[in-house]
Amino acid sequence: MHSESSPLGEFDLIQRFFKAGADAMRSNDQKMIALGIGDDCALLKPAAGEEIAITSDMLVAGRHFFMNANPELLGRKALAVNLSDLAAMGAKPIGFTLSIALPKVDAAWLEAFSKGLFAIANQYSCPLIGGDTTAGPLTISITAFGSIPSGKAIRRSGAKVGDDIWASGIVGDARLALAALRHEMNLPESDLKQIEHRMHNPTPRVELGMKIREVASAALDISDGLLGDLQHILNQSQVSAEVFLDRLPKSETLQKQSEDIQNQFAASGGDDYEICFTAPIDKRDAIDQISTALNLPLTRIGSVTKTAGVLEKLSLLNKNGVLLDETKSAALLKSFDHFVK
Amino acid sequence: MHSESSPLGEFDLIQRFFKAGADAMRSNDQKMIALGIGDDCALLKPAAGEEIAITSDMLVAGRHFFMNANPELLGRKALAVNLSDLAAMGAKPIGFTLSIALPKVDAAWLEAFSKGLFAIANQYSCPLIGGDTTAGPLTISITAFGSIPSGKAIRRSGAKVGDDIWASGIVGDARLALAALRHEMNLPESDLKQIEHRMHNPTPRVELGMKIREVASAALDISDGLLGDLQHILNQSQVSAEVFLDRLPKSETLQKQSEDIQNQFAASGGDDYEICFTAPIDKRDAIDQISTALNLPLTRIGSVTKTAGVLEKLSLLNKNGVLLDETKSAALLKSFDHFVK
Repeated sequence: MHSESSPLGEFDLIQRFFKAGADAMRSNDQKMIALGIGDDCALLKPAAGEEIAITSDMLVAGRHFFMNANPELLGRKALAVNLSDLAAMGAKPIGFTLSIALPKVDAAWLEAFSKGLFAIANQYSCPLIGGDTTAGPLTISITAFGSIPSGKAIRRSGAKVGDDIWASGIVGDARLALAALRHEMNLPESDLKQIEHRMHNPTPRVELGMKIREVASAALDISDGLLGDLQHILNQSQVSAEVFLDRLPKSETLQKQSEDIQNQFAASGGDDYEICFTAPIDKRDAIDQISTALNLPLTRIGSVTKTAGVLEKLSLLNKNGVLLDETKSAALLKSFDHFVK
Repeated sequence: MHSESSPLGEFDLIQRFFKAGADAMRSNDQKMIALGIGDDCALLKPAAGEEIAITSDMLVAGRHFFMNANPELLGRKALAVNLSDLAAMGAKPIGFTLSIALPKVDAAWLEAFSKGLFAIANQYSCPLIGGDTTAGPLTISITAFGSIPSGKAIRRSGAKVGDDIWASGIVGDARLALAALRHEMNLPESDLKQIEHRMHNPTPRVELGMKIREVASAALDISDGLLGDLQHILNQSQVSAEVFLDRLPKSETLQKQSEDIQNQFAASGGDDYEICFTAPIDKRDAIDQISTALNLPLTRIGSVTKTAGVLEKLSLLNKNGVLLDETKSAALLKSFDHFVK
């Protein structure tokens, strides 16, 4: 009936691109999904002793991605950034809902977008279980669900004085790619090629999140900038920290830039989707083993401290262990704010 | 730190309007929420033997509501339409996430919006547990969670031949109000006053959904038009139906209109947020008792049938029990399609 009123109406569109992708995944081992797409609600049937982790991210065209962004990469990234939040709690992905506003029904765009989306969904065994589709300015809103043994989620509030502070992978490359694409700076084509994937195609650290559940005291994913995000841990754990700027893990490409650019992009560039976590110092060996097992660098960048009389203070040290001055420090601690241009 | 970069930046905004509202509800009896707003994920701790119902709805300015819509009513409606989906499965609300794109930080708008949002959240004991806030064209994306004993969800697929078809409340008034506000028709001011709340301030039938869990064979909420939505039940249950047009429950205000308008708006007006459900005929007394207990009309509008050789056919009968002709019938069966103007 709907096809009579429009050659490719809302219901056909959902059916063709999203339900097909969801159905193709039914055979996966998602025992926790009692009912997927197609009813008023989806139904999750949690395993005994498991909690459900829930995260939501909204991506807006012109704000989080360029209007003409490659739709396949966009589909990948839209889900990946949500899986990154699940990873930061140590959760195993279960499924996700997608609500999407589309300016028009563009079959080629939708095909590419859903290809990217379901590539990540398949890779992490995280099927689409519901959502909404409407006309409107291009906006992608995903809510993702993960499973985690009761009481084992890694919260932001658990950092203890004396803990090491760790960062996974490398930081700053997504910001460097953005700077080049926005023509804020000149970057050789070969350098851009090296790092561009870090902006367009981030890897959610799902395996890492599950593995550090037993060793980390606090964790979060780095989306708005490493040091700005780290401060959420400090605030919620009511502790301070010392971070050594020169220990921030950077790519060879970023290391070709000036020290100021290196520090700025690594410290507060954002869009990294790495995990920053804290752990007691007696877990260093265990963490090094996890790093080896995953073939993923895990770098100690500083320590959790308690500044007498001052709460939740993040102190930045240069390579000689000397405190940075306030102005320099403030610039590096700034998180990305979506309402400030 | 964020307040240095902007007088009212993203984090302050979340804190001020949404986290405050969420915190105010912490004292409620939401034992299923292990962790609310403020970390990478929220954590639900389902009760033993309970499934989690999940639904997502996206509302776009200029499409689902007027740009200058009253923000308090908008906040109410944005959550209410999601609770309506939970109700249609028979689920008890647990909590919701809100992702919202805002063109600018408008404190007065946000205050009114969150007032309406939390009024509904409080009324149904359904706290905000997470979400996302960003700059962008005004778009509201909510995912709501409900709890339901395992296997007890009312699915669309359970209708059986011989079942009655029921509708709650009245239908068509939201469409009548829209027609008046769009100046498609002239409606006396006093009539508009009578019915406007049906468009701006729908009541999710949460209590009804939970009460009909034991009697209904299938259910859904009426959002895109009663008969169009009913066809989802027919499709998923692989049955047909006969519906008596003159039995569709209409307000006195709608009954002042021509018979054609009455039928069109009641049958396919949309935005009703009532529940359409099927139930065996031996449940009529039980359903009448539910109606009395909730002081909510529940009306039998037709029957589930099996048309030999024809699947999933919805036949419309006039008040003399005579079949409507195909053209008239097709017009009344049309659902709202968000991509057809």
